[in-house]
Amino acid sequence: MADPTMAQRPAIRPPKIRLFVEGSLAAGARVELSPDQAHYAGRVMRLGPGDALALFNGRDGEWRGRVARLDRKGGEAVAEERLRSQTAGPDLWLLFAPLKKTATDFLVEKATELGVARLVPVFTRRTAAERINRERLRARAVEAAEQCERLDVPEVAEAATLERVVAEWPAGRRLFVADEQGGGIPAAEAFASSPKDAPAHAFLIGPEGGFERSELDALGRLPFVSRVTLGPRILRAETAALAMLACWQAITGDGRSQPPARD
Amino acid sequence: MADPTMAQRPAIRPPKIRLFVEGSLAAGARVELSPDQAHYAGRVMRLGPGDALALFNGRDGEWRGRVARLDRKGGEAVAEERLRSQTAGPDLWLLFAPLKKTATDFLVEKATELGVARLVPVFTRRTAAERINRERLRARAVEAAEQCERLDVPEVAEAATLERVVAEWPAGRRLFVADEQGGGIPAAEAFASSPKDAPAHAFLIGPEGGFERSELDALGRLPFVSRVTLGPRILRAETAALAMLACWQAITGDGRSQPPARD
Repeated sequence: MADPTMAQRPAIRPPKIRLFVEGSLAAGARVELSPDQAHYAGRVMRLGPGDALALFNGRDGEWRGRVARLDRKGGEAVAEERLRSQTAGPDLWLLFAPLKKTATDFLVEKATELGVARLVPVFTRRTAAERINRERLRARAVEAAEQCERLDVPEVAEAATLERVVAEWPAGRRLFVADEQGGGIPAAEAFASSPKDAPAHAFLIGPEGGFERSELDALGRLPFVSRVTLGPRILRAETAALAMLACWQAITGDGRSQPPARD
Repeated sequence: MADPTMAQRPAIRPPKIRLFVEGSLAAGARVELSPDQAHYAGRVMRLGPGDALALFNGRDGEWRGRVARLDRKGGEAVAEERLRSQTAGPDLWLLFAPLKKTATDFLVEKATELGVARLVPVFTRRTAAERINRERLRARAVEAAEQCERLDVPEVAEAATLERVVAEWPAGRRLFVADEQGGGIPAAEAFASSPKDAPAHAFLIGPEGGFERSELDALGRLPFVSRVTLGPRILRAETAALAMLACWQAITGDGRSQPPARD
């Protein structure tokens, strides 16, 4: 794992650094590293020219490469050999009402680890936040993807009202809504039965203050919506999102596959 | 939910404040509020003498009560009427290698929301932290329990080495170990089959740097241990803990019960 804490104990486990790049990856291809990545590789992980690192761009799989240059303005790496081919992750969307900064950052990081393909900020009636910083959320998603061995980075959609998002809902995608007001079916049941009824899936969690009753009722009337319950405790919004995603992956998602083999 | 953010929008949803107290609860019983609770009730939630609040102590159920006194040194409330009887939560332990401060606080909060009965800090070979602050973790657990409608607060056990904890392992409790190195069985399978083979359960996650291979192998040889896999992405320690707990509750825990009815 490319985890800064590892730098303190190199004797125990050599750091594995893995960076997301925009450029195309092929044998001998040179790719740009951002100033942040150059700082992380050079200052935090103590890499220098010639040191090995892993590279991915969401299109060409994962590549072993080497650092070519690192400085304050950024850096450059050269791809050498493909380690893994690109594979499509699960097609999951997470619709979330923007929370307070820390909770939102946390949500984006954890949703990335749990395999979400698309993060969709939605404004509900009780959403306190009025805007989101897409660039910041994207940066959190990139960092989480680098650390969790994903081969892609989730897209961060433009924020929109919940009304507009459901009005433009794509055919064939089922939406699971976390219902903390007791109107849902147990998540395990809802998820176990869903592969039959839709090829693609999405999850929606409300803001800190929850949904308005009328919002939940309106959502419940939509043909593509299933309201799910997550048990007797009232989970915070970000916890509910994680719980739904983790259960989905374990029950019907990719929870049966193993992590990529590493030496 | 006793959520500070609600104070900004009382017109939309009146704040419901719920406090954990040490004293016994019965009709007419007076209970002490800590200085922090008095500050939260008075300054954050703007309550004063005579205002209603909910009280629980982990023994006597949940009670409707009223504020009797609030000042800098603390406060007092009087219990009036029982709202819910005490019920035992699921008997789940979470063994975790202490992480960095934020991640540990987060882990304690989320584990409380997800219904853990006992939090057990364990030192593994790669655990960076050398001590934990039990009081701080307990305070986080109390706060999370107040907000998630739990009727009890998880116990925070004294930290010990993983070797010692497994050496003194209680009969009849199965331990699920999050194995990020590919040696586990899928969580959904492990959990769905476990009610038959043990009455009580526990979960173990390693430190930021993961377990040493030999630690995982030794754990795998213990008769009460099941190594579980959480899918192809390498989850951070705190994410792995949450994923296991959320899946457990949904698949074999209390995920089929609904939140308590509220007006």
